[in-house]
Amino acid sequence: MLLEHIASPRDVKALDATALPQLCDEVRRAILENAAAVGGHLAPNLGVVELTVALHRVFDSPRDKIIFDVSHQSYAHKVLTGRAAAFTDPAHYGEVSGFSNPHESEHDFFSMGHTSTSISLACGLAKARDLAGERYDVVAVIGDGSLSGGLAFEGLDNAAVLNSGIVIVVNDNDQSIAENHGGIYGCLARLRTSGGTASNNIFRAMGFDYRYLEEGNDVDSLVEALEALRGIDHPVVLHVHTTKGAGYDPAERAPEVWHHVGSFDIESGRKHTLISGDVPEGTYADITGAHLLEAMKRDPRVVGVTAGMPYVMGFTQERRAQAGQQFVDVGIAEEHAVTFITSLAAAGASPVFGVYGAFLQRSYDELWHDLCLNCAPATILDIGASVFGASAETHLNYFDLAMLGSLPNLRVFAPTCVEEYLLMLDWSLGQRELPVVIRVPGTKPVSRPDLVADFTDAPDFSKPAYRVVKHGQDVAVLALGDFFELGERVVAALAEHGIQATLVNPRFASEFDEELISSLPDRHRVVVTLEDGVLAGGWGEKIARRLSDRDVRVRCYGIDNHFHDRFDPRKLLEQNGVTVEGIVRDITSLL
Amino acid sequence: MLLEHIASPRDVKALDATALPQLCDEVRRAILENAAAVGGHLAPNLGVVELTVALHRVFDSPRDKIIFDVSHQSYAHKVLTGRAAAFTDPAHYGEVSGFSNPHESEHDFFSMGHTSTSISLACGLAKARDLAGERYDVVAVIGDGSLSGGLAFEGLDNAAVLNSGIVIVVNDNDQSIAENHGGIYGCLARLRTSGGTASNNIFRAMGFDYRYLEEGNDVDSLVEALEALRGIDHPVVLHVHTTKGAGYDPAERAPEVWHHVGSFDIESGRKHTLISGDVPEGTYADITGAHLLEAMKRDPRVVGVTAGMPYVMGFTQERRAQAGQQFVDVGIAEEHAVTFITSLAAAGASPVFGVYGAFLQRSYDELWHDLCLNCAPATILDIGASVFGASAETHLNYFDLAMLGSLPNLRVFAPTCVEEYLLMLDWSLGQRELPVVIRVPGTKPVSRPDLVADFTDAPDFSKPAYRVVKHGQDVAVLALGDFFELGERVVAALAEHGIQATLVNPRFASEFDEELISSLPDRHRVVVTLEDGVLAGGWGEKIARRLSDRDVRVRCYGIDNHFHDRFDPRKLLEQNGVTVEGIVRDITSLL
Repeated sequence: MLLEHIASPRDVKALDATALPQLCDEVRRAILENAAAVGGHLAPNLGVVELTVALHRVFDSPRDKIIFDVSHQSYAHKVLTGRAAAFTDPAHYGEVSGFSNPHESEHDFFSMGHTSTSISLACGLAKARDLAGERYDVVAVIGDGSLSGGLAFEGLDNAAVLNSGIVIVVNDNDQSIAENHGGIYGCLARLRTSGGTASNNIFRAMGFDYRYLEEGNDVDSLVEALEALRGIDHPVVLHVHTTKGAGYDPAERAPEVWHHVGSFDIESGRKHTLISGDVPEGTYADITGAHLLEAMKRDPRVVGVTAGMPYVMGFTQERRAQAGQQFVDVGIAEEHAVTFITSLAAAGASPVFGVYGAFLQRSYDELWHDLCLNCAPATILDIGASVFGASAETHLNYFDLAMLGSLPNLRVFAPTCVEEYLLMLDWSLGQRELPVVIRVPGTKPVSRPDLVADFTDAPDFSKPAYRVVKHGQDVAVLALGDFFELGERVVAALAEHGIQATLVNPRFASEFDEELISSLPDRHRVVVTLEDGVLAGGWGEKIARRLSDRDVRVRCYGIDNHFHDRFDPRKLLEQNGVTVEGIVRDITSLL
Repeated sequence: MLLEHIASPRDVKALDATALPQLCDEVRRAILENAAAVGGHLAPNLGVVELTVALHRVFDSPRDKIIFDVSHQSYAHKVLTGRAAAFTDPAHYGEVSGFSNPHESEHDFFSMGHTSTSISLACGLAKARDLAGERYDVVAVIGDGSLSGGLAFEGLDNAAVLNSGIVIVVNDNDQSIAENHGGIYGCLARLRTSGGTASNNIFRAMGFDYRYLEEGNDVDSLVEALEALRGIDHPVVLHVHTTKGAGYDPAERAPEVWHHVGSFDIESGRKHTLISGDVPEGTYADITGAHLLEAMKRDPRVVGVTAGMPYVMGFTQERRAQAGQQFVDVGIAEEHAVTFITSLAAAGASPVFGVYGAFLQRSYDELWHDLCLNCAPATILDIGASVFGASAETHLNYFDLAMLGSLPNLRVFAPTCVEEYLLMLDWSLGQRELPVVIRVPGTKPVSRPDLVADFTDAPDFSKPAYRVVKHGQDVAVLALGDFFELGERVVAALAEHGIQATLVNPRFASEFDEELISSLPDRHRVVVTLEDGVLAGGWGEKIARRLSDRDVRVRCYGIDNHFHDRFDPRKLLEQNGVTVEGIVRDITSLL
């Protein structure tokens, strides 16, 4: 095993050139076996094994700076920079994160997990280098769908006029997460098929020196191409054609499905757990996809919109085929998605944009300036927004309510169960008044017809009205969305202490049932708010402010606003005092 | 006067073709005279007079949809769509807003004032049209610096693959607000000088049909070029070369200075009030520019960064020349700016990005995922953030605290006066620990050495510590930033009622002096928070939450989160109960 002797990039440089292909094989095998055991971003990483080996062969990290866009394709980089054990030794699996992380290694310059940032980051490094009068190379590796993000373009636009050395490696695997969408991918395709010679080259158009390498999974060719870029004094794009999933047949054949995987059997390719592109039956994704497809059949103006992740809203390839023109994948371009649904809605269509909360935040200005200012009746499904959603610090999905809560004209729903969710979705599709965000629970779907039993006809959500599920006294528990169940448990535990608490399902997360809130002090001495999100700027604080000059004590429960990484959600809640026992203890001490 | 007979675009169509140049002259004169009297976006609008007349001659608004990017160049459009009186009759000046507005006219489809949205909006209109099986033309008019914004690229990327008719008019006046920056402008320049024939055409690269028109201020040529695009069935870019400020000599010669003007004398070109590009002496902009330039001279790693608006941070052309490599204009690309300063700071530089709050919000994800997650010691000057800042609904600058308040690792300062501001700025430039936002007051600079008298040496802002300016009892007034002066007046008025209130200058707007806050109930029965921003999700609510389970009443003062348009700030404050009298009345009733 060569890998045993690779403790740092220096060891890659020390190898005989003829040994590089073997090193690539070993790195690939390590990535594959690790992913088979514990899951991960398989296909993107398999595609860049040779590129990464070549980068570390040629450049001198950490003096030279190599930035992997999104950093979900930095596994080979991790293997070569002293972290091989986390991939080769089951006892150390899970010791490194799935993204680049400066706390792990001096070869990782940034914590990052969103696409399209690498070129801007590289520009800053290059500029800082020049101001300090230092000399080293700065390399951004971008691709795998990241180029469609607006930030990547802003970065390109500025890198082109940097007047200094900067290397941008375009890792072109002809695949985004799902499929590539957008004009730039047509341009890349024409460059690929012409061996880089097609006219109307977008990189040359912007002023870059441009090179093309067809053999993107051949380490010797890569080394040669990169050698030519060492110490370069101007902005250059090296366009490399790689194969996503390279070296593992199932992943090469179905890179979308193998983009991010759970555990699987290497020989058979049989998955043990969820694989991206899968939409398991009975999940909120599946329920959403099925429900929207029916809505589309009834109304040709219902349109599903995704930014490169159709499966998070249940749109499998099959459902996309059925939806036809009524489903649009705009590629990784969340800003465009929000402005696009704004005008779709303004022109009479009923668009539904499904997106993780962590990515919806890329559209803050479009939410404010386009969607909300124009009060366009579009629907956004804010998916996985929960401490039980993603647990990578780069992908925290529970800052959404704090982000959305001050936007004017916006209605944010927080459903407690499947039935309530679908009623809210249907109401939103049927109305022409205002933009709606539905916070699709990040927890497992629960069926609770009793929670919508107050609706005899089609529900009217045109005014914010909280539902009092249980009338009590002394204590009122306002339990939002998927934390309603926590509220039920708190109320049950209080009953054991002889306290008959009031339990409220607020349903609305950005507007307030002012009458109900204002009446709470009449019969209650303590009000508790529960939300599955950050406290700072969140929902509970808005209740606290409304009652803080009244004769009642309010205690808000939620999460502290730190970048928690790879946490156990139960433990995080415990740390924040969000447990039934803790809450009941607090309440009894406040009474 | 032809203009007297133009009540709608229909009347433009009814004119004899030979009359169009005269119509253009009259429209131009109206815009010029109106701007001379009341100010406005002069140069951009003068450049598109012929283009706008031609668009309304050829297309059939409002059936056909014409979207003017940013919409600050839609004055001619307003003149031609029934709103001429607002430009020609002094009695009606000010009756229309400076941006497109659906409440004004059926020819305005969206309220908008941020750049780079038009192509995405056009995509949605075109898609809605296709889904409904309707037929009309959709035209986006973009240029004047808007193309460098990432959203414009995401829009282009998607428009190119729309598989349907969409017209994108690139209004190329070779000028952003200040200057054009970025690779795309090099591409446009090469296309201009080659009459549209240069190889490596970025629009063709993305798959657009592309046409070029050199005579962008010749109405006949424009009519001819646009006629060819009526009913087109695929995505097309019409690249038009216009002259910013066309027809008014001073504006043609100095389009940056004449981008947005106050009143002026037409004959002499003498300005009566502020003109964009000016940095009047003694303003916060001027103080900032002068101070940063000194810091740059002392330390070669201090870098000023702007996104197309150098003068908002006091960087006149002169100061930019003096700063040299230490000042970077990234063009209209706020997302890039934030990611760029992240890596600049990470690599040892001390970047300072000056930006209006309304545009900082375009970088929400970059603030969260790049700057804050990586805890990069960069400084952002959040300029004009106040109800006394911009009063157009598109440019409201007082949502910033609500946006910033939940971001982890971020230190937000709210200085009360010039002295405090500069101490905070210096502290930020000297530290390597965390990202800093300084909320530069939107009000007139005040000098108050007494407010920093507690600092004998260089101040240490490493821990959030509020300053108690006056120790009292019963009532505590926490008055943030530029509202400190309001707090002083409230405390003085309370004294007249025999109440000796405590007055606190919090200084920190996103972190909390927990000890001080927690001790407030010991000597006070009422706590009041004052902030120059929206209440929902803002700063005061965070205080309210901290005290809502304590024996004290808290009342928060700030602004409601609505899109107020063209308001009088005093009246808006009054409507929100933010007056000395109102606050004192509330307090006495709470005691």
